[in-house]
Amino acid sequence: MSAFDLTIRHGRIITATDDFQGDIGIVDGRIAAVAERLSPGRRDYDAAGRLVMPGGIDSHCHVEQLSSMGVLCADDWYSASVSAAYGGNTCIVPFAAQHRGQSLREVAEQYRASAAAKSVIDFSYHLIVSDPTPQTLETDLPSLIREGITSFKVFMTYERLKLDDAQLLEVFAIAAREGALPMVHAENNDVITWVARHLLRHGLTAPKYHATSHAPVAETEATNRAIQLASLLDVPVMIVHVSTQGAAQAIHAARTLGAPVHGETCPHYLLLTADDLDLPGVEGAKFCCSPPPRDPASQAALWRALAGGTLQLFSSDHAPYRFDETGKLPSGEATTFKQIANGLPGLEVRMPLLFSEGVRKGRITLNQFVALTSTNHALMYGMHPRKGTIAPGADADIVVWDPARERRITWADLHDAVGYTPYEGMTITGWPDVVFSRGEAVVEAGTLQAAAGRGRFVSRGQPAPVRSARVPGTEARFMRSLSGAGPFTAR
Amino acid sequence: MSAFDLTIRHGRIITATDDFQGDIGIVDGRIAAVAERLSPGRRDYDAAGRLVMPGGIDSHCHVEQLSSMGVLCADDWYSASVSAAYGGNTCIVPFAAQHRGQSLREVAEQYRASAAAKSVIDFSYHLIVSDPTPQTLETDLPSLIREGITSFKVFMTYERLKLDDAQLLEVFAIAAREGALPMVHAENNDVITWVARHLLRHGLTAPKYHATSHAPVAETEATNRAIQLASLLDVPVMIVHVSTQGAAQAIHAARTLGAPVHGETCPHYLLLTADDLDLPGVEGAKFCCSPPPRDPASQAALWRALAGGTLQLFSSDHAPYRFDETGKLPSGEATTFKQIANGLPGLEVRMPLLFSEGVRKGRITLNQFVALTSTNHALMYGMHPRKGTIAPGADADIVVWDPARERRITWADLHDAVGYTPYEGMTITGWPDVVFSRGEAVVEAGTLQAAAGRGRFVSRGQPAPVRSARVPGTEARFMRSLSGAGPFTAR
Amino acid sequence: MSAFDLTIRHGRIITATDDFQGDIGIVDGRIAAVAERLSPGRRDYDAAGRLVMPGGIDSHCHVEQLSSMGVLCADDWYSASVSAAYGGNTCIVPFAAQHRGQSLREVAEQYRASAAAKSVIDFSYHLIVSDPTPQTLETDLPSLIREGITSFKVFMTYERLKLDDAQLLEVFAIAAREGALPMVHAENNDVITWVARHLLRHGLTAPKYHATSHAPVAETEATNRAIQLASLLDVPVMIVHVSTQGAAQAIHAARTLGAPVHGETCPHYLLLTADDLDLPGVEGAKFCCSPPPRDPASQAALWRALAGGTLQLFSSDHAPYRFDETGKLPSGEATTFKQIANGLPGLEVRMPLLFSEGVRKGRITLNQFVALTSTNHALMYGMHPRKGTIAPGADADIVVWDPARERRITWADLHDAVGYTPYEGMTITGWPDVVFSRGEAVVEAGTLQAAAGRGRFVSRGQPAPVRSARVPGTEARFMRSLSGAGPFTAR
Amino acid sequence: MSAFDLTIRHGRIITATDDFQGDIGIVDGRIAAVAERLSPGRRDYDAAGRLVMPGGIDSHCHVEQLSSMGVLCADDWYSASVSAAYGGNTCIVPFAAQHRGQSLREVAEQYRASAAAKSVIDFSYHLIVSDPTPQTLETDLPSLIREGITSFKVFMTYERLKLDDAQLLEVFAIAAREGALPMVHAENNDVITWVARHLLRHGLTAPKYHATSHAPVAETEATNRAIQLASLLDVPVMIVHVSTQGAAQAIHAARTLGAPVHGETCPHYLLLTADDLDLPGVEGAKFCCSPPPRDPASQAALWRALAGGTLQLFSSDHAPYRFDETGKLPSGEATTFKQIANGLPGLEVRMPLLFSEGVRKGRITLNQFVALTSTNHALMYGMHPRKGTIAPGADADIVVWDPARERRITWADLHDAVGYTPYEGMTITGWPDVVFSRGEAVVEAGTLQAAAGRGRFVSRGQPAPVRSARVPGTEARFMRSLSGAGPFTAR
Repeated sequence: MSAFDLTIRHGRIITATDDFQGDIGIVDGRIAAVAERLSPGRRDYDAAGRLVMPGGIDSHCHVEQLSSMGVLCADDWYSASVSAAYGGNTCIVPFAAQHRGQSLREVAEQYRASAAAKSVIDFSYHLIVSDPTPQTLETDLPSLIREGITSFKVFMTYERLKLDDAQLLEVFAIAAREGALPMVHAENNDVITWVARHLLRHGLTAPKYHATSHAPVAETEATNRAIQLASLLDVPVMIVHVSTQGAAQAIHAARTLGAPVHGETCPHYLLLTADDLDLPGVEGAKFCCSPPPRDPASQAALWRALAGGTLQLFSSDHAPYRFDETGKLPSGEATTFKQIANGLPGLEVRMPLLFSEGVRKGRITLNQFVALTSTNHALMYGMHPRKGTIAPGADADIVVWDPARERRITWADLHDAVGYTPYEGMTITGWPDVVFSRGEAVVEAGTLQAAAGRGRFVSRGQPAPVRSARVPGTEARFMRSLSGAGPFTAR
Repeated sequence: MSAFDLTIRHGRIITATDDFQGDIGIVDGRIAAVAERLSPGRRDYDAAGRLVMPGGIDSHCHVEQLSSMGVLCADDWYSASVSAAYGGNTCIVPFAAQHRGQSLREVAEQYRASAAAKSVIDFSYHLIVSDPTPQTLETDLPSLIREGITSFKVFMTYERLKLDDAQLLEVFAIAAREGALPMVHAENNDVITWVARHLLRHGLTAPKYHATSHAPVAETEATNRAIQLASLLDVPVMIVHVSTQGAAQAIHAARTLGAPVHGETCPHYLLLTADDLDLPGVEGAKFCCSPPPRDPASQAALWRALAGGTLQLFSSDHAPYRFDETGKLPSGEATTFKQIANGLPGLEVRMPLLFSEGVRKGRITLNQFVALTSTNHALMYGMHPRKGTIAPGADADIVVWDPARERRITWADLHDAVGYTPYEGMTITGWPDVVFSRGEAVVEAGTLQAAAGRGRFVSRGQPAPVRSARVPGTEARFMRSLSGAGPFTAR
Repeated sequence: MSAFDLTIRHGRIITATDDFQGDIGIVDGRIAAVAERLSPGRRDYDAAGRLVMPGGIDSHCHVEQLSSMGVLCADDWYSASVSAAYGGNTCIVPFAAQHRGQSLREVAEQYRASAAAKSVIDFSYHLIVSDPTPQTLETDLPSLIREGITSFKVFMTYERLKLDDAQLLEVFAIAAREGALPMVHAENNDVITWVARHLLRHGLTAPKYHATSHAPVAETEATNRAIQLASLLDVPVMIVHVSTQGAAQAIHAARTLGAPVHGETCPHYLLLTADDLDLPGVEGAKFCCSPPPRDPASQAALWRALAGGTLQLFSSDHAPYRFDETGKLPSGEATTFKQIANGLPGLEVRMPLLFSEGVRKGRITLNQFVALTSTNHALMYGMHPRKGTIAPGADADIVVWDPARERRITWADLHDAVGYTPYEGMTITGWPDVVFSRGEAVVEAGTLQAAAGRGRFVSRGQPAPVRSARVPGTEARFMRSLSGAGPFTAR
Repeated sequence: MSAFDLTIRHGRIITATDDFQGDIGIVDGRIAAVAERLSPGRRDYDAAGRLVMPGGIDSHCHVEQLSSMGVLCADDWYSASVSAAYGGNTCIVPFAAQHRGQSLREVAEQYRASAAAKSVIDFSYHLIVSDPTPQTLETDLPSLIREGITSFKVFMTYERLKLDDAQLLEVFAIAAREGALPMVHAENNDVITWVARHLLRHGLTAPKYHATSHAPVAETEATNRAIQLASLLDVPVMIVHVSTQGAAQAIHAARTLGAPVHGETCPHYLLLTADDLDLPGVEGAKFCCSPPPRDPASQAALWRALAGGTLQLFSSDHAPYRFDETGKLPSGEATTFKQIANGLPGLEVRMPLLFSEGVRKGRITLNQFVALTSTNHALMYGMHPRKGTIAPGADADIVVWDPARERRITWADLHDAVGYTPYEGMTITGWPDVVFSRGEAVVEAGTLQAAAGRGRFVSRGQPAPVRSARVPGTEARFMRSLSGAGPFTAR
């Protein structure tokens, strides 16, 4: 027991449940011991006066991905993983996105290879299924799930990505059979398209009309529909980037009935509003994402939903598009709101924003901060207890956090390749100090100490909502009751 | 004042609000006077001991219509109007159904010509819009609405009829602009199709699987979606043939927020269940309709919804398919549940069923009976006060009802061309005695006294939900608030 | 048939359901005929260009009553009935209020005698039960109900009037057995008292703190409690003067489950807010009532509840206290908010206010106006079809209404004895023109033509919610299921 | 680091969040280290093949308490603490019950002295406030809270204990000011009394009528009322022993709005029904408690509420009354349901029941088991992180659990003084093996190894719901907005 590779000493250790002073002993990149006092290791890091927490996991970010509009992310696996590490994260889970006509397996393998070559922190990825061919459904998706890619996202909007309701049922059935968690981008595509067409017909092309076209009812309706479809098969589902009170209520109501429905929100829905899009020229494009930021009443509802447990995840939905012809503005100043690449950057500031606005302003507790930024991501996506906690046996993915450091956000200080931040000029209190990935200080004293490719792929197990046995008596199992029909997921 | 053409004397007169003893004086087919005692007319009908009520209006029935499966109704305008009259009705409002590729105007005009030639009672018709081409939307539909066809039905299911959400918004916008009432068949087509495919794959082809495939969640989801889409444009909407508690709750909840959402149910949802489909061979096909009958809990919920005002209309949804190769069973005994023509007959027994099961069993009042079978139909579809009430100026469309007559239902006694009734053998108390259409006794002493073609087309005005000004402050008017955008319904 | 005593001709006749041009023929104070055209009567009144509606029924007003604070109403039966008639009413139903220690029967008989001597229009009265002694419960209340006083009010607040929950159950059980309708003033007395004590302790004595002390939660809680208690016995209940959105929602939710719960609101909750109490000195006392006026969001919710059918009645809750030591201000300028007599006058302006703000502003229809001001009162309190409608056999209680007349409200023009009106200076469009009580023009051309004592007592039958059989399957009948227990209402 | 007093080795360690294999090192009764492998201690306990979890905390049990009916508990601090320890518990928190006329401080001090003399495990206690005199409210209660008794229970039923709504507000205000958590027994006393009187009047005296008299509506109503009263002051509240779906829904709905409302349920509401009371003679008295067991639908709703997070606590509500004249049956065979002492024993079987029925049947996870039986109790009542978790610095209160041991419950095997168990004969899988209290094996190999008085008093800090800052924008802070009024809790 004498030789730890590293100890992190004298810190205030916070997990999703616990809060104590102590030391952490690390051997071979894993946590070997947590104690009030440990004997010295080969290296000893003094965390006195600071918080020691599980490293952040950002389970919703876009990296080296081709958007549905054909725009390539400004961040590749290297810049993204570096930016994430600076922001206190030790693991990211972006998307291997299938576009129509592509082989899901090829997309996944190429994506993984690129990640393995470049990422400075550990990683996994979700799949995006946009082309549910027999090859995808019967071969590629099941085998990839069994290889540890146990979650995938589907879209109800975006012409080139969206699935119709029958396709949603088809992929939900695979998820139910294989034990994967579907993530749903829930917006009614027809509503958005119809309103947008009307707006454009009237010459209303400015960025702020992006928010108008993505009417709240489009999200609330689609969220309800996704929940109802999932209930037919009794499959767990994660509603990503919830922005409306109506969507949060639909999730809350489903859980009253015992349905395994979960939700996520993002910094921009708590801190920005549609008014931020109302700027001269195309400047508002910097704030265009889908769903769009809403209004103060929605912000308040989402804070309540985070604090009260309706929403389990807080992710960045980092979508790194530069504010120029290569990204946000394909036609430059002539860009209409329908041409703006959708999405905001936020990988590096996600945790500081939630700490400053959430913990320090008394909206959530420290334990909730850990759960919302790390532990719940590990649970939901099958990485717990290896990731997302501070306990013996877990990877030594740890962030040492200075709760009192105050800093003004400016893009020049960030490490992504986007060129702007929607939070420019905002003063934040509470920033990461040192970030340990498997026991190595990858960021320390503001300096990166990790080479491209040191990050490792995390093979994931069953998501917690899949593992959790259901409460007997939940609705919607009618398929199972068909005598002679056999399990509905059988081929 | 001395000369009424006809008086109906000594009856207990019931309207949606009133209940009194008195006489009705009729001149030129219209009600000229309602009084405690009137001087004799040229003819005097003694209604002593019976109820005198507005003639029934069946605003949801299928007559001389080609189904989406290509099956022609067994009832043409003559047999249908005769059967309706025997059942206490003085007006029917079936559907001029556009199939894809057809001109809405031509369909409507041919349908009207046929009705005018054959119907024995007054009539109007709704449109069914299945092909929202520019010609349909910009020319035919608006002009037909202005000519008095102020309602139309749209489908969310049936491959050959269904509109997608964008098309629903398109036709809702026309309704909003022109002041018409859209009726919605709300079932999620993809859910039904997906479940059916699964069932057939497992060889589950019997009629009872029709009910399985039309899962309650399909109806509840689509009802919620229709309401949300309508809320975007603040357009009134009528959800037809509500069969689930979830759908009724969605309507109830919408009205809490002030939305002009209305609903209808039918005899089979109150009196039959899915178990009725579970018969040997294809016998269950006699009970196949969409949505299907549900279960006792749903029945109880629908009775509450009728009595409590959540649902405003009680219609037959008469769908006259013979139980043979020409109708229900295109492949005879080899018919699978997906091939069964959807729909049940019920035109002639609608009012007796509600009277016997509703009024006599104390679930609804006499005034509610009148409202649910007549007055509300006139209001909802723009025929009030000409139809649907007993008041000076109204057409003398009157049914004299014997509340004590007990009779066993058997198809041999009915006057439709269907060949069976799902209520065969049921004993009912309360039947129509004499039916006056514009002051003429069209059915009396069990005898038809009316020739084909005596019925007249009723040009309809604005539906009541359109006329009713909205309560200020209802949601979903965001389109109107677009500065510079002009009203959203402008071209 | 040639000789009507009176005809009202050429008017646009509006009932809760109908709307037509025609004449009304009156014989012996009752409507004998309603027709498009009638032969002349002994007198003929030309109503061309005006609306002819059932006379108003104000079923919630305080007349010649001693308040719980010992203040006597400024209006006796004469001034109140005159003021009501000027306001378009042909019937009022105030309260015979039992104070503790009083015999309910004596109170009722004295009250009726005074009414009979003074009222210029027909009348009935509810009981107020504040002392449920055995004599009250077992003898007086049942016998008075059987004599036609088929409703009574109970209080959940006011120290000298309130019943506790066990007493509420006791009187509800009598109502269930005898077929009467309990009316409930639902505010949690302890909440009000506790908050008031705190406010007074801090020297916050101004009238506006009355509104603070009657917290919305006090009303919402008590409304829910009253509904739950009534559900135990499955007894219908009327929640009077609903002012909060929460209370309206509780009523709406109860009806979803089929419970016979009804509601009423009043002009001040639609047109005033708590800000109206915030005036210098004790001026705000003019606006003090219980529950107090709330805020604009509550107003909007109540308009929706009226238009959507959640609330059935619109009453004045006329409480005639003069703005001096005899009424509102027992201690003059030194009066604290706890000493202010509770209640606002409104008998004469109730109908014009609803017409102007409701019908003319498009929030409700003409038929709804009639239902809310007259028909529903007759139905709810057992006077229909004798009162509340225009139909043969009904009393000729009719108001001829000029929908276009515009007038500024000023107390000097009113006929009550209160000395002020909270609506002073408000301009209203739509006023009564002539008011017929049993065929006699009691107010015409601004002149009273009726002597004290011409009004007659109306013996009332069962309230409509009592008569309506319940939908089978409603909750809360557990008492009935007790084998061997016999009906719970048995003595 | 070489010298632990004790290590627990090779177990599968489960906390509310974590799940790992490892060793626990204990020094001076506290957990000093948690590691994958620790060097040997002075004693080493091998937990291989078993679960190592935080010792149970039973925060709702009755010990050495005089009931409101004057019956003394059969269990004193010694037998209760022994029975609890055998059941896997390391801490109990019963009640120091003030009866009217008693000094709260004296009650508390005597209770503590008795506990200190007899308890074999650590303990705290809640207060029961039944006599909110100025001395109680202004002196005793605040000082006791400051001394670490940071929770107290109040009753809305039981004649000798219940507070009225004003008293509830009074004690809630103290809780708000001092940072304590009120626990509420929420049943409407008047409803229970009224129904019981009716039943007795009809001679319905058998134990099963106890369940009839405690109608579900009594609990649902009172739960809603307690929540509304708490919302007025924005004070957190714990609704104890939730048994109805309606009460669970009220809690769930309150949290949607951000209100700090929490709930608890107990074994008998999950595993028994009202039918269990329906036994010959007075045998059913063994199952009489308040609220009573309900029905299977309620059980299913409560399982969902536990699994879904609506209810945070699972307690025994152990109420140790012998089945004879000293306890349950004051009049022996002549006892009526109103005389039966209320409450069921359950201290020793609480954890095994939840493990067997919850974890093993897949209704809850292992982490949820720990949260519901231990961690949440520590959090809710201010003992975390000292109690309720396995982490450095925490007390070494640990249960080693054999998940596979199967045993039939029989009272002869239990260690309480009650004489029967309602679960007699039920077979349970999963029982405690060794129980460590502050590092001492108090129960091992079925043998008690602890002397009376070794348990220590736990001074408690602020309950978690108090510590959690509230989400800005929650309702019900109107008191704070009173300008000039000062904080509502000021004297």
